[in-house]
Amino acid sequence: MSLPGKIPPPTGLRVSEAGERAIIDRIRRRIPPSPPGLVVGIGDDAAVATADRGTLQVLTTDALVEGVHFDRRFSSAADIGSKALAVNVSDVAAMGGAPRFALLSMMLPGDLALDDVDGLIDGLLEMAGACGVALAGGNITRSPGPLIVDVTVVGSVKPRKLLTRSGGRPGDALYVTGTIGAGEAGLEWLRAHAGGGTRPEPDLAECVARYRRPDPRARIGALLGRNRAASACMDTSDGLADAITGVCQASGTGATIDAAALPIHGGARRWFAAGDVVQTALAGGDDYELLFAVPRRARGRLRAVSREARGVALTRIGELTKGPAIVVSRDGRTEPLPAGFVHF
Amino acid sequence: MSLPGKIPPPTGLRVSEAGERAIIDRIRRRIPPSPPGLVVGIGDDAAVATADRGTLQVLTTDALVEGVHFDRRFSSAADIGSKALAVNVSDVAAMGGAPRFALLSMMLPGDLALDDVDGLIDGLLEMAGACGVALAGGNITRSPGPLIVDVTVVGSVKPRKLLTRSGGRPGDALYVTGTIGAGEAGLEWLRAHAGGGTRPEPDLAECVARYRRPDPRARIGALLGRNRAASACMDTSDGLADAITGVCQASGTGATIDAAALPIHGGARRWFAAGDVVQTALAGGDDYELLFAVPRRARGRLRAVSREARGVALTRIGELTKGPAIVVSRDGRTEPLPAGFVHF
Repeated sequence: MSLPGKIPPPTGLRVSEAGERAIIDRIRRRIPPSPPGLVVGIGDDAAVATADRGTLQVLTTDALVEGVHFDRRFSSAADIGSKALAVNVSDVAAMGGAPRFALLSMMLPGDLALDDVDGLIDGLLEMAGACGVALAGGNITRSPGPLIVDVTVVGSVKPRKLLTRSGGRPGDALYVTGTIGAGEAGLEWLRAHAGGGTRPEPDLAECVARYRRPDPRARIGALLGRNRAASACMDTSDGLADAITGVCQASGTGATIDAAALPIHGGARRWFAAGDVVQTALAGGDDYELLFAVPRRARGRLRAVSREARGVALTRIGELTKGPAIVVSRDGRTEPLPAGFVHF
Repeated sequence: MSLPGKIPPPTGLRVSEAGERAIIDRIRRRIPPSPPGLVVGIGDDAAVATADRGTLQVLTTDALVEGVHFDRRFSSAADIGSKALAVNVSDVAAMGGAPRFALLSMMLPGDLALDDVDGLIDGLLEMAGACGVALAGGNITRSPGPLIVDVTVVGSVKPRKLLTRSGGRPGDALYVTGTIGAGEAGLEWLRAHAGGGTRPEPDLAECVARYRRPDPRARIGALLGRNRAASACMDTSDGLADAITGVCQASGTGATIDAAALPIHGGARRWFAAGDVVQTALAGGDDYELLFAVPRRARGRLRAVSREARGVALTRIGELTKGPAIVVSRDGRTEPLPAGFVHF
């Protein structure tokens, strides 16, 4: 019998050959010691955690479904675990909040290797460590179909620091963090090279890495909230175009986007070159950047955020307008914004 | 275009014929007005809610997977929605907490009728209303396989009212709420009559109803916590035997169960009569009762809970013991406890 806390060795077994308790036990031994705020962790009917004084709770859930959101040929088990948490952390960041606890609900096909379950947990815990999140509990069950990793994150935000999609006003400048198009380009590269054997060139390798292991803007979301630099915020998980539309609809504004200003990733720019680079980069999903609106009076506060952004660019890409139209301005002409990523 | 808040009429459409936004819109219009504690509901990156002052957060997640936890021949969409929330409320009750908010994550097969999505939401909202829970947010995505309804519930509990599995001590009396065996008998009856056409007799009809629409012991869990009447508590979702084992393992005790005292449902007793009634009722899953331990000094407090239990029986079924053995005492002999429901 292994000691608690000691990570069990690879097994070569399938999920169907292990019991539920054995799987939970393997998960439990991978989890680092509970932070002080976690009163009851894995192993009871529910997890119990302290609430931060004077804060609101931020609650979000997002699932990765095999065959819809990932392909096991393109992503390792650890990639899937990391991303399942990252997409939720991104949602909390878009509210200006700090993620605190995660619940992990897994639906496991019987033929999944137990070592892949271990890998998935390790990937998730790596991301959890990077974002200051504790895995507080969850649920596992058998799946008669795809592998599904459904994560809930509970975070906290001070009431006056909360960022919603609806606070934008005409005249506010629109900014986006980092670069766009990398997630989409990385996925397309993987699909085009599904036969294997080819290595991506460095700029596309970066896109592939960004697709597999998105790095949510947890720090910048919290900074934007804390500094009250943004009037509205949304993450770009379904594409930048989708986020622009989301902020405009919730805020009751239109927008003008400057095509030349878009921070399109170099690898994506090269990969999309056969088509319309701007439209493809705007429409593509699987980036986890933040789109946010900055009122004129908050520009000084934005500079303060920028100084603490640790090298992540904050790029002005346009502004919110009074009229309802959302347009892309390119070479002196305007064109409509493409639709975002569609899940159904 | 329907007005917000007006429930759209049946469509005859399939999920694959509707867009993600159209489905979310149909859900949103079914949801009653937000309670004061829900600051941001459906439609932003995350939900935002106030935390009750001086309380701990209770966090739990549980999924219903088609082909594992339900069969669409046996349960209506509304049954599935109701039960998906009920199983989570049961977990919060077992911690002595009050459920407050739910997140609903659905994975929808493309051929699912949109009217079934509506029905599922209506069933979930009916249970939410009965338990004082607000649907705060969630996620929907396509499923390439089964229908999956994964719910997270966030509740609250005062620190001194928290019930865990681990607080039981030798000599504490073991109690169970309501009756056992009904869920298992109801499911078995449905399986035996899958061809249709037969109506169950009244006592088995009650078992079928209990299987389809479990009624979690939200009120009694909160009362046990508030009155500090129990030293340990666990729900019986995987069977009473599983709960007894869970409390004993966490508390470091054994137990003696009195077979004659078990409150086996009349319909279940009749349905199981061909086999060993006691062992079958102990092993069967799909009851959502609470098993709890009561120290001698808390018996007066238990009577107070009992008076407020609104007709739900609290039955003494045995006691925790110092030795590690868990045994069933029947007709002057002892026999081992059966294993609980196994998910894998």
